[in-house]
Amino acid sequence: MKELVRKVESILDETLPPAHTVPEVLHESMRYSTLGGGKRLRALLAMAACLAVGGEIRSTSGLAAALEMVHAYSLIHDDLPCMDDDDLRRGKPTNHKVYGEAIAVLTGDALLTEAFAELARMPEKYGVPYETTVRVVLELARGAGSQGMVGGQVVDISGQDQDLNEDTLHYIHSHKTGALFKAALRGGALLGGANDEQLAQITRFAESFGLAFQITDDILDETGQTEQLGKAVGTDQVLGKQTYPRLYGLEKSQELARQCVKECHEALRDFPKQADLLRELASFIIQRDH
Amino acid sequence: MKELVRKVESILDETLPPAHTVPEVLHESMRYSTLGGGKRLRALLAMAACLAVGGEIRSTSGLAAALEMVHAYSLIHDDLPCMDDDDLRRGKPTNHKVYGEAIAVLTGDALLTEAFAELARMPEKYGVPYETTVRVVLELARGAGSQGMVGGQVVDISGQDQDLNEDTLHYIHSHKTGALFKAALRGGALLGGANDEQLAQITRFAESFGLAFQITDDILDETGQTEQLGKAVGTDQVLGKQTYPRLYGLEKSQELARQCVKECHEALRDFPKQADLLRELASFIIQRDH
Repeated sequence: MKELVRKVESILDETLPPAHTVPEVLHESMRYSTLGGGKRLRALLAMAACLAVGGEIRSTSGLAAALEMVHAYSLIHDDLPCMDDDDLRRGKPTNHKVYGEAIAVLTGDALLTEAFAELARMPEKYGVPYETTVRVVLELARGAGSQGMVGGQVVDISGQDQDLNEDTLHYIHSHKTGALFKAALRGGALLGGANDEQLAQITRFAESFGLAFQITDDILDETGQTEQLGKAVGTDQVLGKQTYPRLYGLEKSQELARQCVKECHEALRDFPKQADLLRELASFIIQRDH
Repeated sequence: MKELVRKVESILDETLPPAHTVPEVLHESMRYSTLGGGKRLRALLAMAACLAVGGEIRSTSGLAAALEMVHAYSLIHDDLPCMDDDDLRRGKPTNHKVYGEAIAVLTGDALLTEAFAELARMPEKYGVPYETTVRVVLELARGAGSQGMVGGQVVDISGQDQDLNEDTLHYIHSHKTGALFKAALRGGALLGGANDEQLAQITRFAESFGLAFQITDDILDETGQTEQLGKAVGTDQVLGKQTYPRLYGLEKSQELARQCVKECHEALRDFPKQADLLRELASFIIQRDH
C-alpha cells in the first residue's frame, strides 16, 4: 500500500502544472495543498476497484490524480473562514493562512477544473476508451456536485447547532464524503472494465465503506490527538456539528463501523484474490488512528 | 438573436436541478445566479461557431448550458468579499448578499461541477460522439482552469494598484475572459464537425473577439451607467485595476476595439453565409451599451 501511495504522489507531481508556470502563486498554492500529505484514500480506492474487477492499475492514473485534486479543493474551501475556519490541515497551515482567502478560493476552483482536464486526457495519456472516459467524467461530476459532495457540505453547514436527526446525519455523510468514495470506486471499476454485476457490488461496497469511514472520522475527532490527525480535534463539537458519537454514543458508533466493514467484505464475497487490496482498505479504515 | 437567448434560458432552466431538490437552498442559489439575465454571449458564440462550420445548433445545447454555468460560477466567486466585493450583478444583489458567503462559494463550486456533468451527458441527451465529448470537456477545462480563466483572475487580483504594463494587461484579459470565449467558440466548432482549417480560423476569430470584448468592457466601466450595466460602474479605477482606457486612453482604446472586430471578420472571410450569426456577434460586441 505504501508503494501505491508513493505512486499517487508521483502521478500528482507530474500532473499538476510546475510551480514556475504563470501564474506562479496559483500553481505553488495548488501544489502546496495537493502534494506531500494525505492518505490518498480516494486514489487507492480507484486503483483497488480497478484491480478487483480484473483491470490494470495504470489505467486509473488519470482518475487517481483527479480524485486527489477534487479532494484537495474541497478541503481548501471547507477550511475557509466563511466555512469551518480551520488553521491546520495535514499538519500544515491551511491554504488561506498561507496564500490569503482570494487565492485559496481560486486554488480550489483551479484544482476542480484541472481534475476534469486530467480525465479528458485519459484517452491520449493512458489509452482509455472515449466512452469509458465520458462515463468516468459523469461519475466524478455527480459525486462532487450539488447532489453529491457539495450538497453534503451545504446541509452540514446549514444544520450546525440544530437538533440531531438520524436522516440528516446520514444525508450529510453519504454525500459529503460518501459520494466521492463512490465515484472513486465506481470510476476505478469502470476503468477496469467491470460488468454490471461487478459494478453493483462495488457500489454496495462503496456505500458501507463511506459510512464506516465517516463514523471513524467522527470518533477520531472526539478521541484523537492533533499531532496524529494533523488537524485540530474536537472542532465538530465546537461547531455544533452533527456526528455519530453525539447521536449514538461512542460504543454504539464503533459497533456500527465494524458492522459496515463486515458488509464491505460481504459485497466482495464473489470477487477473486485480486480484490484483496480492496478488502484490506475496508479493514484498515476502522483501525486507523489518523 | 433574441430567440436564441430565450432558447438558452430554457435549456438552462431544464438543465439546472429544480429548486425543490435537496439541498433546496443550494439549488435555489444556483438558479438565482444562473437564470434570468445575462447576455448569454458564451452560449451564443458556441451556437454561432457550430452553425458557421455547417453544424446544427441542437448539438451545442449541452455546451451552451455548461458555458453559462461556468460563467455564472466565475461571477459569484469574483463578487465575493475576498475578491472584488461587489454588491450588484445583473441588476440584482450578488449571490453572497442573498445567501451568505459560504453558500456563495459552494454555489460556484456546484455550478462548475454541474457544467462538466452536463457535458458528459451530451452523448446520451444530444447524440454527440464520445470522442467529440471528450475534446469539448478538455476545451472547457483548459479555458476555465489555472492557465485559462482562473489564471487570469489570479493575475488580475495580484496586479491591482501596480504599475500598468501592456503584457500583464494582455495576459489578464486573454485569460480572464478570452479563454472561456475561446472554449465556447472552439467547442461549438468541434460539435459542428469543424475540420482543422476551420478550427484554426475560429481560434483566430476567438482571440480578436476576446480582446474586442474586454476593451469595450473596460470602456463601459468608465463611461457606462449603473442602470444599463446592472452592476456598479467605475469600480475598476477604485480597485486600481489594469484597464485599456487607463493604459491607452479612451480614443485609442476604441480604435483598438474596432481593429479587433475587423480581424474577426477577416478570420471568417472564407466561411459561407451560415457564419453570419458569428459575424453579427463580432459587430455587436463593440456597439453594445451593456
